Amino acid sequence: MAVQLAHRMASIKESEIREILKVTQQPDVISFAGGLPAPELFPIEAIDRVQHLVLQESGTQALQYTTTEGYPPLRHWIAERMNSRLGTDFDADNILITHGSQQGLDLSGKVFLDQDDIVLCESPTYLAAISAFKAYGCRFIEIPTDQQGMDMEALEAALASTERIKLIYVIPTFQNPTGKTWNLKKRQQLAELASKYNVAVIEDNPYGELRFEGEDLPSVRTFDKTGQILCTGSFSKIFCPGFRIGWIAADKELIRKYVLIKQGTDLQCNTIAQMVIAKYLELYDIDEHIQKIAALYKKRRDIALQAIQRYFPENISYTYPQGGLFTWMELPENASARHLLELALQSKIAFVPGGSFFPNNPKENTLRLNYSNMSEERIDAGLQTLGGILKEYLARL
Amino acid sequence: MAVQLAHRMASIKESEIREILKVTQQPDVISFAGGLPAPELFPIEAIDRVQHLVLQESGTQALQYTTTEGYPPLRHWIAERMNSRLGTDFDADNILITHGSQQGLDLSGKVFLDQDDIVLCESPTYLAAISAFKAYGCRFIEIPTDQQGMDMEALEAALASTERIKLIYVIPTFQNPTGKTWNLKKRQQLAELASKYNVAVIEDNPYGELRFEGEDLPSVRTFDKTGQILCTGSFSKIFCPGFRIGWIAADKELIRKYVLIKQGTDLQCNTIAQMVIAKYLELYDIDEHIQKIAALYKKRRDIALQAIQRYFPENISYTYPQGGLFTWMELPENASARHLLELALQSKIAFVPGGSFFPNNPKENTLRLNYSNMSEERIDAGLQTLGGILKEYLARL
Repeated sequence: MAVQLAHRMASIKESEIREILKVTQQPDVISFAGGLPAPELFPIEAIDRVQHLVLQESGTQALQYTTTEGYPPLRHWIAERMNSRLGTDFDADNILITHGSQQGLDLSGKVFLDQDDIVLCESPTYLAAISAFKAYGCRFIEIPTDQQGMDMEALEAALASTERIKLIYVIPTFQNPTGKTWNLKKRQQLAELASKYNVAVIEDNPYGELRFEGEDLPSVRTFDKTGQILCTGSFSKIFCPGFRIGWIAADKELIRKYVLIKQGTDLQCNTIAQMVIAKYLELYDIDEHIQKIAALYKKRRDIALQAIQRYFPENISYTYPQGGLFTWMELPENASARHLLELALQSKIAFVPGGSFFPNNPKENTLRLNYSNMSEERIDAGLQTLGGILKEYLARL
Repeated sequence: MAVQLAHRMASIKESEIREILKVTQQPDVISFAGGLPAPELFPIEAIDRVQHLVLQESGTQALQYTTTEGYPPLRHWIAERMNSRLGTDFDADNILITHGSQQGLDLSGKVFLDQDDIVLCESPTYLAAISAFKAYGCRFIEIPTDQQGMDMEALEAALASTERIKLIYVIPTFQNPTGKTWNLKKRQQLAELASKYNVAVIEDNPYGELRFEGEDLPSVRTFDKTGQILCTGSFSKIFCPGFRIGWIAADKELIRKYVLIKQGTDLQCNTIAQMVIAKYLELYDIDEHIQKIAALYKKRRDIALQAIQRYFPENISYTYPQGGLFTWMELPENASARHLLELALQSKIAFVPGGSFFPNNPKENTLRLNYSNMSEERIDAGLQTLGGILKEYLARL
């Protein structure tokens, strides 16, 4: 290529997941790789009706440009929903509609990060958050994370000893990739440390509504006395991802900054998609819909974990998610999930090796398994095959 | 605010147009400010039918995640359209679907620009392109531009004498804000200079299909022997803007880079919007639709230019656009379009002062007038009022 690209392009690699997903588009592949919702639950008929109503009632508005901030009734609904489910205290002006919650991460990089700034994150963390932030030239510090959340001593040690920390990025509920959920105390401690060290927190929460058991926990934001916690959310997992509608919620002064940045980035989100979702929320019972999704994923999680227990060797460990889409597995130290994937793909089984979820220090003996996107029969059959392949692989090591 | 933002935030200002547009949402304001298409021509019934068909035929696909590259039939249509209308030689793999052509500009900033790199642009140029590129810390050099396009001697002088020029950004057809169109020779010269100095060109073309008279001109890309010209396009002006679907077309190697960058930015564009547009293009005659739009805008341009001739003072000049949405006016040197706007708003008339369209050296005696978004009666009445206000203002100067 004769033309010269930006330096950041040297560090931007093909996304392993996206490449695996291409393989998995073959219909005979059993894929635990993606994070795709179950399409059989998309409310197609309701959406069809709602789209028709929106075009009938306000077609010219739905197809025209709108404000960068987003469609007011939708912003209002999101604020109320967060307040009632997560204990926050938002109104519509605290909400910016984004092109999926992924855009919330990209805009956060643009608003907060200069070259060589530092982002603190869980270890492991969401792979596409690493890509989003890395495009702004930041570095990462991985904070050790156990069953209850980040290690707060390690977090404070990093905050106290490191210059240029600009963001702490966390997914405290049904984390991607591990499925783990932070306890209440760690949520409170995080808010206190963020305030003490003047660092902004991005609390990413795409899965929080998909709880199978146990009690809902409040947002980290409820412990925020200084306005430093920003929350992202999404309709992708509770409605459908094709519309690409998510949001970021934060103090109004910060939301104004995000609006300015979004103007130059893509002007605004899809008008009709915002109006269709708002109309659906007005006419239908989303709680009932979410209950259906959660019930199905619970059944699939149960099938998946039973299959792992039945078919997998004993010298592995895996998480028991109370909600969300993923379980996380650790193989013996000397195993490589990338090698296992090569073997699995020969038998038309796919998953994501865990290494990509660590920005600095990949643990190659880990892997992520999704259970939301396939029938129970395929989950069981696929894990039986994968368990056999793993046993053989470990025996040969 | 306790938390610290990125340095770029210091230079990101409220967009003047967006703020003016908020004022113009009052129904009694006559606005020449926005660049909004005529909503009465949105094909609402056709879209209603097509949305229903897409959901019926492939609902789960339309509501699910899809590839970053975009929906293959839509990418294919775009390549064929550009080849037949603009003389390019693209196939589907040369096309990335973007969230409006604005996202094509943002992604171009991300792919090409490091802090303190330089972008060359027409003077004046599209205001939101300035915002998009500026977010990546670049500086601008404005190249003088006359009725036929950029001054090629000035362009070569800048290219020959300046380090770190990474992009040349141009809108050669029905330019925003001036309505001017580059001649064939300048298009060829631009491609040759870009190649000679190894600089990439973004040829932005949102209005090219809206020609009222005269002959279509080929894309700058048709003169590109070294793969350095990138083209952006959009369905916003020929279909409707609410869907936020545009594209960038370039060499495949470059498109791969854009795909990687888009993955971390927002994963993909709205799936159902892409499928709805593709289905519309399959079932309906877009040429017929575009002819209707162009006929209406031609009538409105004629009314606008006649009204200017009739009601405005003689010591001004303005462009005669052969297509697109805007005319550009220069007042006497000592006049300020910002002052004129203050007076005009008192009479409920809005337009955009030209100063914002110059990244470095605002000419405050200029303004942009849009004629696409209002009835002919309002255009005539609004310009009669504005002409009177301008005469009075100039008399008092």
